[in-house]
Amino acid sequence: MANSATGDSVLERVVRVLETFTVDRTTQTASDIGRRAHLPSSTAHRVVNELVAAGLLERDDDNRVHLGMRLWELALRGSPALRLRQAALPHMERVQARVREHTQLAVLEHDSALFLERLSHPQAGANITRIAGRLPLHASSSGLVLLAYADPELQERILAGPRRALTRETVTDAAALRRLLADIRRRGHVVAPGSIETVSTGVAVPVRDASGDVVAALSVVLPRETAPDEAIAALVRAARGIRSDLSSPPASH
Amino acid sequence: MANSATGDSVLERVVRVLETFTVDRTTQTASDIGRRAHLPSSTAHRVVNELVAAGLLERDDDNRVHLGMRLWELALRGSPALRLRQAALPHMERVQARVREHTQLAVLEHDSALFLERLSHPQAGANITRIAGRLPLHASSSGLVLLAYADPELQERILAGPRRALTRETVTDAAALRRLLADIRRRGHVVAPGSIETVSTGVAVPVRDASGDVVAALSVVLPRETAPDEAIAALVRAARGIRSDLSSPPASH
Repeated sequence: MANSATGDSVLERVVRVLETFTVDRTTQTASDIGRRAHLPSSTAHRVVNELVAAGLLERDDDNRVHLGMRLWELALRGSPALRLRQAALPHMERVQARVREHTQLAVLEHDSALFLERLSHPQAGANITRIAGRLPLHASSSGLVLLAYADPELQERILAGPRRALTRETVTDAAALRRLLADIRRRGHVVAPGSIETVSTGVAVPVRDASGDVVAALSVVLPRETAPDEAIAALVRAARGIRSDLSSPPASH
Repeated sequence: MANSATGDSVLERVVRVLETFTVDRTTQTASDIGRRAHLPSSTAHRVVNELVAAGLLERDDDNRVHLGMRLWELALRGSPALRLRQAALPHMERVQARVREHTQLAVLEHDSALFLERLSHPQAGANITRIAGRLPLHASSSGLVLLAYADPELQERILAGPRRALTRETVTDAAALRRLLADIRRRGHVVAPGSIETVSTGVAVPVRDASGDVVAALSVVLPRETAPDEAIAALVRAARGIRSDLSSPPASH
């Protein structure tokens, strides 16, 4: 594909432009984008114009741009993430009706837990996760479950690499983390008190597809003082239901 | 941006590749994609390889590709669609708990109603809509609401253009459609029996943002024999709640 003078492809520049949009920064000028994406201003303006022409970005009245509905449509319509999320949602609602805190669905994506869905009770406690947001594998309950069932190669890379402590309770020691992962595989769930926020306990279970592969983690975030037993039971039931629904062909009605 | 011999840009080719993925076609070979996107096979392979390298497509073990989680993340993270959907979901759940059929959120996108969310009851009746799917403005209850509050220019274009009848009850006559749109603006809702499927009635209301602009349509699909009054009341309440939530800044917790 066509390369710029610096050797990055058109597509790489497009990705760098799209990466500058976040949940806290949904509209920007082309100049802002160029600065944040480390692109020359003329390049940023050209890429933004192309993205607007394709409908992937949309221009506001004040000449700022935001992510386009067309991008959302193209990214979701044929996405495995949408199918997984659709299979999971009714079961997440049942967990949510029972536990009344936060219920979340995450997948493994580039050494992180990427959150596909989150349901929250209006009076629920603190929760750092956001849809389309990420958390480190070693720190979040969802990430720990995903890591416990991941390829040994990924596990070894995470065990070898630097692991940031988000709180004093985040398990960062390699030997302790290795024991925790084995424990998760033995029990089929994790209870991670205070590893992301000291006031909360994350509880997560693996979600398997028809062939038994772990494809996601289902989790709840409880206030620290809440016992996790009811949540574990609700999550295990929900994961079983999702697996069963993933085994049937997608309903057209 | 760099153009091919046929004059289409790299980005246009990327969009054409992404467009070949649908809810019924989530994995494809590069050759399939080339054929469906009307691209030379070598071009299709090159674009697919670039998309895989950027993480926007992912390759299966059997060399087929599917939409990547990275694309999903980039498209959603900073998207106005996500914010609207997050504001709407709790209110949609309340409608759903009351009406127990299908509850849907749609936005106006390129002369169609594009569906952002759909909640369904396991025993609910027929419903053609899908998340990230589209329906014609003149035929769906959501589309009629979006059209009723759209720019006059768009209304005139739809009124002037060809309008396909999805059933014998789809309103296709221009004068009748014009009267229906005025009626929707006067009542603040639409009841559209049989316009999409003869066995169902669509009921929809406008969703406004803080400044009063109509930004979405909220709808339920009822079995034809169900009276719409309770659904209308639930939808009006929900739309008011969404507007109120859209007026407050997005919660970080």
